[in-house]
This record gives sequence, C-alpha cells and structure tokens, in this order.
Amino acid sequence: MTKYAIGVDFGTESGRAVLVDISNGEEIAAAVYAYSNGVIDEKIPGTQVHLEPDWALQDPQDYIRTFQKTIPAVLQESGVDPSDVIGVGIDFTACTMLPVKEDGTPLSALLEYRDNPHAWVKLWKHHAAQPEADKINETARNMGEAWLDRYGGKISSEWFFPKLLQILDEAPEIYAAADRFIEAADWVVWQLTGVETRNSCTAGYKAIWSKGDGFPTQNFFANLHSKFATVIDEKMTRDIRPLGERAGGLCKQAAQWTGLKPGTAVAVANVDAHAAVPACTVTEPGRMVMIMGTSTCAMVLGSEEHIIPGMCGYVEDGIMPGYFGYEAGQSCVGDHFAWFVENCVPESYQREARERKMDLHALLEEKAARLKVGESGLLALDWWNGNRSILVDADLTGLLIGATLATKPEEIYRALIEATAYGARIIIEAFQDHGVPVHELVACGGLPEKNKLLMQTYADVIGLPIKVSASQQTSALGSAMFGAVAAGKVAGGYDSIYEAARVMAHLKDEIYVPNPENQRVYQSLYSEYVTLHDYFGRGGNDVMKRLKAIKANVRK
Amino acid sequence: MTKYAIGVDFGTESGRAVLVDISNGEEIAAAVYAYSNGVIDEKIPGTQVHLEPDWALQDPQDYIRTFQKTIPAVLQESGVDPSDVIGVGIDFTACTMLPVKEDGTPLSALLEYRDNPHAWVKLWKHHAAQPEADKINETARNMGEAWLDRYGGKISSEWFFPKLLQILDEAPEIYAAADRFIEAADWVVWQLTGVETRNSCTAGYKAIWSKGDGFPTQNFFANLHSKFATVIDEKMTRDIRPLGERAGGLCKQAAQWTGLKPGTAVAVANVDAHAAVPACTVTEPGRMVMIMGTSTCAMVLGSEEHIIPGMCGYVEDGIMPGYFGYEAGQSCVGDHFAWFVENCVPESYQREARERKMDLHALLEEKAARLKVGESGLLALDWWNGNRSILVDADLTGLLIGATLATKPEEIYRALIEATAYGARIIIEAFQDHGVPVHELVACGGLPEKNKLLMQTYADVIGLPIKVSASQQTSALGSAMFGAVAAGKVAGGYDSIYEAARVMAHLKDEIYVPNPENQRVYQSLYSEYVTLHDYFGRGGNDVMKRLKAIKANVRK
Repeated sequence: MTKYAIGVDFGTESGRAVLVDISNGEEIAAAVYAYSNGVIDEKIPGTQVHLEPDWALQDPQDYIRTFQKTIPAVLQESGVDPSDVIGVGIDFTACTMLPVKEDGTPLSALLEYRDNPHAWVKLWKHHAAQPEADKINETARNMGEAWLDRYGGKISSEWFFPKLLQILDEAPEIYAAADRFIEAADWVVWQLTGVETRNSCTAGYKAIWSKGDGFPTQNFFANLHSKFATVIDEKMTRDIRPLGERAGGLCKQAAQWTGLKPGTAVAVANVDAHAAVPACTVTEPGRMVMIMGTSTCAMVLGSEEHIIPGMCGYVEDGIMPGYFGYEAGQSCVGDHFAWFVENCVPESYQREARERKMDLHALLEEKAARLKVGESGLLALDWWNGNRSILVDADLTGLLIGATLATKPEEIYRALIEATAYGARIIIEAFQDHGVPVHELVACGGLPEKNKLLMQTYADVIGLPIKVSASQQTSALGSAMFGAVAAGKVAGGYDSIYEAARVMAHLKDEIYVPNPENQRVYQSLYSEYVTLHDYFGRGGNDVMKRLKAIKANVRK
Repeated sequence: MTKYAIGVDFGTESGRAVLVDISNGEEIAAAVYAYSNGVIDEKIPGTQVHLEPDWALQDPQDYIRTFQKTIPAVLQESGVDPSDVIGVGIDFTACTMLPVKEDGTPLSALLEYRDNPHAWVKLWKHHAAQPEADKINETARNMGEAWLDRYGGKISSEWFFPKLLQILDEAPEIYAAADRFIEAADWVVWQLTGVETRNSCTAGYKAIWSKGDGFPTQNFFANLHSKFATVIDEKMTRDIRPLGERAGGLCKQAAQWTGLKPGTAVAVANVDAHAAVPACTVTEPGRMVMIMGTSTCAMVLGSEEHIIPGMCGYVEDGIMPGYFGYEAGQSCVGDHFAWFVENCVPESYQREARERKMDLHALLEEKAARLKVGESGLLALDWWNGNRSILVDADLTGLLIGATLATKPEEIYRALIEATAYGARIIIEAFQDHGVPVHELVACGGLPEKNKLLMQTYADVIGLPIKVSASQQTSALGSAMFGAVAAGKVAGGYDSIYEAARVMAHLKDEIYVPNPENQRVYQSLYSEYVTLHDYFGRGGNDVMKRLKAIKANVRK
C-alpha cells in the first residue's frame, strides 16, 4: 500500500505544499497559497500604523491559512486517502520570529497589541535591528565570546537576538507581554501538534545555540540589557530537538484545518535552504548544495569542526544529523541579472525579445552564449548587494572593468554571470582551504532551470561537475522526506533521513562538466578577480566604503 | 564699406564654409557639403578593392567639391559681392595626408594608381600604421632623440611619419610614384593658390617639426628605412610657414570653382581645433580652450617652453604666433555618452523620451541633474576609448565602481559625465604643475550647447569658471579670421590675428561658475578618482592590459 508524506515550504511571499509518494519521491500534487498580507513593510494591516524603512513583518494567520488552503488542495488533487498520509514536515524562512502568549496565541492576534508593530512576525529580511546587532557583536568581541568564530566573526541583524533585543529596546511592553519568543518555523509545528518544540537548525544558525555549548551565558545577555539576562529561561527554552525527530502528532484542530488524520506524525521544523540538502541527494561530506535564486545559499556537510573565516556559520546536526552543517551565501545572484535587465538593456533588445516571443533574460543568454570566454575583456565584482560571505561586508559595491566603446549589453550580462561564478569559487576555495572538502556541486532553485549558460559558466569557472536536482521544489520535497522520517519505518516511512534520501531524492541526468579550454582562460580571469577582490575588499583601497559614506552624508 | 572673409572647415564627414563680417565677426551665411565618398573604410570607390580593419581613407575630390558647393552657396545666400570678400582661410582635420604628383595631382586621381589604397588620402583616424609608429618610437628612444619629450614621450600612429612609413613599407611603388607627400590642409591651399605652401601647425603637431630644430635628422630617418633618409628633401620641404601668413592669392581655376575674385588672399592652412582658439577670444596664456564633442581637445598658450609628461605636444607658434601652443586630449567624451545611450538605457526611458518629445540625452540629463553630488555613490574612470593624454595608453579601459541594486541609469550617465570632468581636471593640473598656468576655461564644440549639466559639472569639478564661445562653428570662424589677417589691414582686414580676435571673436554672456558646496564633495570624489587612475593607469594593477591581451588572444 503506497504511503505519502506532505512537505510544506513557507517562503517569503507564499506557502507551498507538496504531496509525495514515499516509495519513490514522486511529487503527486502541489498547491500554493499567496499570503493575503504578504510582506508587511508599509503599514500594519487594518490600522493606520506606518512602518519605518527597513522593517519587514508578516501576519501569522497567513501561515495557518497556508495549512488550511494547500493541504486540502493536494489531497483533493491527488485523490489520496488522508489515512495514507503518514507524515508532515515543514520548512521556513529564517530567522522569522514572533512573540506569543503561553498558549501560542500571537500577540498580533490580540486586539490590545495589534497596533504595535513589534507584536507582529519579524520576517527574515526585517533589517531594522542593525544597532542591536552591532551591540551584540561589540559586546561579544569585548567579552571574548568563543561562539563568534562559529559565525565567521559576526552575526547578522537578521538573526534572532538582534530582533528580540530590538523589541526589548523599543517596545518593552511587548517584551513583557510575550510569554515566548519563537521562530515561526517552530510556531507552525506547535500549531500542528499543540506542543511547543524547537529545532536545532534555526537555533544553531540564527540563535547562537550549539549542541555542545548551548546558548551564550546569562552574563553575556545581562551585558546587553539588564532585563535580557534570563531571556532563555523566561521566554525561550533550552530544549532543542534535532532534525529528523518527530515533534508530535497532528492535533484535532490542525486535523480539521488540513483534512489529515489526527495523530499524523509531524517532523521537527527546518530551515527552507537546509531542507533542500537531502532532497538534492546530498547526505555526505564533499558535495555542496547551491540553492540559486535571487541570492545563493551554499551548504556542505563536514565530519569535523573547522573555523572558516567569513562563513555564515556552521552547526552540528544543523543540516543532517551526525554532521557539521556549513553554510555560506552570495547576496546577489539572480537579483544581479534582474537589476541589469531592468536598468541596462536597450529598447532594440526588448523589441527583439518581444518579436521572437522570448524572455529578455533568454535573449541575453542566447547572445552571451555566443561569446568566447574572455572575448569581452570585461570583469566584474559581484557586490551589487554587498558581500555576504568571505568578506562579510554589506558596504562593498559593484564594479565593472574593461568597458570600451564596443562593449555590448550581452557582454556585460555575461560578465555579471561570471562574477557570481568567481564569487562562488572563492567561497568553495575557502571551504577547501580550511579542511572542508568540496568535490561536486548540486544545484537547485530557480536559476539552474532557466539558464544553462550560467550553469556551464559555474562548472568552467569552479572546475567541478555540477548536477541539478530533479525536483523544482526541493525544500518542500525535503520537508516531506523529514515527514516520512518522523513517521518512522513502522508506519511505512523511514527511520532516518539517510534512508529517505536514498529512495526519495533524485538528480537530473544532465551534468555540467567543466570544459578544459574554458577553464584555462577562466583561470586567468579568476586570478584577476581575486586581485581586485582583495584590493577592494580587504583594505587595499576602501573607496567603496568611502563612496557609500559620501552618499549617506549627501542623502541626510 | 563692409568687408567679408570666408572660413572653410574640413571635418571628418563634411566641409563647411562660413561667410563672416570682418567688422564684427557676425556669421552672415553658412553652407555644408557632405563628402560624397565620406569616410572610406570598407572599399575603394568604384573598385572591388576592400580595406583592412583600422583603415580610413578619403577622396581628395571631395575637398574640391566642398569649395565648389559651399562658397558659391554662401555668396548667394548672403548676397555679398565677391569683390568685398577679401580673404579665405581653411582648417582641416590632421594628420590627414596624401601622395601627389609634382603638379599637385593626387595619385588617387590617376587611373593607374586608384586601385591602390595607399594612393588615397589617409584620414586622421586611419589606425593601420601602429607598427610604424612603434618602430618610430622605439628608434627615437634608442637614439635618444630630444624631440620625443615635446610629444609627451611618444608619437601616435595617427601622425604623418607613421602613415608615410606605412606607404613605404606596404606600397613602395606608391612611395616612388609620389613626388610630394602633403597634409590635406596644405594641399587644399595649394589648390586654391596654385602654390605649395606648408603650415607650421600640422608640421609641428603631426610631423615632428619645430621652429628651432626643424625635422629629425637624416640619420634618424635612415634608421627607419634605407629609402627614408632623404624623405624631407625629396618628398616634402623644409620651408614651413607660420600661421597668419598669406599663402598666396586665389588662382584662376579656384576663382572659377568658388565665384570669388582671382587674387583674393588665402591664409596658410591651420588645424581645425587650433583655428578655434582665437575664435574663442583666447589670444593669451592662462585661458584654456576646450573643444568638446565626441572627444575633447584642450589647448592653452604658454610664454615659456615646458616639458609636460603625457601631453599630445607643444609647438612654438603652433596655435598663435609668439606663443608655445600646448595641446592635450581626452579620447572619449561625447562618444562616452553616445555609447551609454545606445547600449544601456532601458525601454521605459526611451518611451518616456518619445512621449515627451525629448532627446534621450536630454531626458537623462534632466534626471541626472536632479541628483545631488555624490548621491549615487558611483565613480567611473573615463577610459572607454583609452587614455590619450597624461597616461597616453590606448590599452586602458573603462571602469565603473559603486553600483548597487538601486543604481539607476541616470546615475551611471552622471557618473560618466563626472568621469570626463575628472579626466579634464587631471590634465589641467598637469599643465599647472609644470609651469603652464590655466585660470579660466572657454568651451566650444557640440556638447556645451547641448548639456548644461555637463558644463556645470566641469566647473564644479575643476573649480574654474567656464565661458562658452558665442559661435557654434568656431573653427570656420577662426579660419575666416585668419583669412582677414592674410588680406591685411591695407585690404580692409587685419595685420594680426590678435587684432582680428579683439573684433571678430565673442563669448556668450552665460558663465558657469563653480558652486562651492558641489566643489567640496567633488574634491573627495576627485581624490578617489586619482587613486584609481594611478592604480590602474600607472602599473599598480595592469589588469586592464591583461584583460585586453586575453581578449586579443581569444579573438585570434
């Protein structure tokens, strides 16, 4: 009797459910719910309360509506009997966090708090907690906190404690009223199971937790704010559950929302990017997963603990149980090309694309693919959105060199593609140089489907073969796999994510193999990239920062 | 009784005549003739002989047709009696040169030679003589030739002897058949007067001649090619006439072509840019003339002889008699903006420009003018077409730094404008630092009329006031002024170009004055420009040259 699992992937604009055949990973049905309140960055819904720039909130009711809309939809589309659905897993953007009452009720759902922006979900891209992040980093450096090294030397304003400290700084009444502060990932699992369960992935990558050392000390938190000393024990928990565990069984209310059977196994929550790793067949060290979309998240497993300068972080059991999960990111990949297409492509190209009924990206890719490697004489630094890994510097900016009066748009487009490939290579070499081997790449996300030139360029620049995930919704598939593991073999699922991956995860047949002739030319171009990278990124010439400072000063 | 002079300006695509009132410089009538064979860069007219890349030729008959078409036209338009036209002056692109027979007949006009590209006029932008220029520069360095310093350390492939040596190298039969090699400027004066007369301006700036030292030695020429030793005495002349002299009177044939009276005074030929200087009212040191079009030519007079590294050259009496004429150039100014508009402006902007019936440049200027100085965070190096002065390096390329995902087209457009202004400032400072004062700028050419933002930016960046010529055809006006001087006071003209300039040259009332607040911010941006200029231009990082080498290698 075929059994099924459902994975629910909570993205920035929408939530997506996928119903998967446990015996082979086949995606039988999928449904998407676009959040009715989307990203809240102008005004609190139903109020006249306006938000400051850099704020980004969400409505937790949208997450519940995602369950209510998508799971019944996939059941209906597939015709699968709910009793054959043995497990549910979820993955989420992170750090996306909210204040709730003891019973899980979000403060934003209570009339007395809903006018206060701090009562709402702070989305991962809420960037208003930079002062708090600065304070945390400075305090940690002054106190010589050992955990800083795990995160490449500094933590981001997007993470859990900067957001939480911002609430305490700016809305102490919300801080006081909240019984719990929790990742949205864990909150939706709580809503499904009726039980608060916290996962090791968000705790490790976003909340300075580690399996060995737990959270930072009470003393450290006290140095941030007198009322912050007991935050873990008062408002959070030290009970962090590893990925692959069963969080609980579906509660009655969630069964009503979804049409699934009460008691259906629910997995501990996961981060969207990390759920994709086993869905890309990656369950061992040496094979890096790159999720390539507007930005790129690169993840690789390691058997040992290594400090890698400029990484986003590493967490034991943070991606796959039994391994250190290393993560790095490039902040501008698809965004780079989107910026170019929107701002820098002449009318004649747009007309040609229309006449040939092509996407403008596809037209540029076609023209760019006709160029030989090095033919344009152009080189770019991929820092249009700063540098997230290696240099960890948001104030770095984009650079293009080598332009002549004969330079064509497709040459610049290709130079931007190449720049992101050089950026990826520099990250991979940092891993390799610090004891974390990488010998193969597995790509997933929106870009690998769309842009073959991009994929071949990465293979040629990096010098490694690139395989591509067979699934176009790897995070949701990965969550379904964790759902099958939560159910366990007894119920028709699997006893580990390793077993699940062997059966349920697949790659496409097509492999991008480095072309030796291209590699040779790219080797020269890459060394030029590295020289410029170090000159502009490591203090040789801080002109980018000074230009940003002039800009900030002028705009005041 | 009002007297008139006619100036004829021979440009790259067309020739233009202007009939001017000698008493006040008023331009009474103008006419343009577009050369019927234009720039010949694909195939010899009337043959199947194709040209190599980098070749650029012209048909000398087009120059004669310019006289035949434009002078009768201005006479007719103005209704001026030909006997009241007392002088004619001409100016020309340079070095534009051709091989002719003893009687002035161009070799290209003789059936037996017309299939040979070397028989035709080599236009200033004929760039196929680079090997010969390299050989000349290397030989001069090895022999310690003193004249090299006058030209900033090297001469260009565009100049006279590289072009001539190319003929000797590649078409010895043409070299042998030619009785004379001559600047087209001097050739058209010969056609007007029936007498071969050579001017000091093209000789000085393009043919390594100086008033004090004459041409390089026979020994030097012998080291270039055994047959080249006697080139000056066999194929040219040592009789070089200063600007402002009368070359002769109009011959009968030219009187028939033009409708002017035989014997009308004809001035010694001039270079187009240099003719503009007195027409811009500049007759003394300290005031720099900038002719701003696709590229910029900057000229300033000096009372003393100074070696200025990286200048195009200086020539005693080369611009105005009695002074050293210093010249520098920026190879990419209007071309820069034209490239951007053609390649990098999105459809939405083009649509807006169309709807508002605006030129796209004007739309970008409008948007760019709304930005505050430094607001974009962008900085560019203006080397899209190499660097002609200061670094004298054609292998340098364009650079843009500071781009973010929020960067808009008008910000890049403004950064390119600013880059050319920084490039101009670095030239001006080189003059000032080496003893040639510059305290005011006078602009003419196409750009100052069109782009007020550009002019204000130059004033703010350079920190000097900028005045603008009242004439929009300053070269032709300057040539008419030299025509009036060739006629002399006795005939109703002037005895010197200084007298003519006082009466006939005018500036607009509008002056661009530096804005102190903008100057302050530009000071910071300019120092960033200088740092990048020196890093990429003086060997700190030769990445631009290496990228060009990779490109050349790939294209092979």
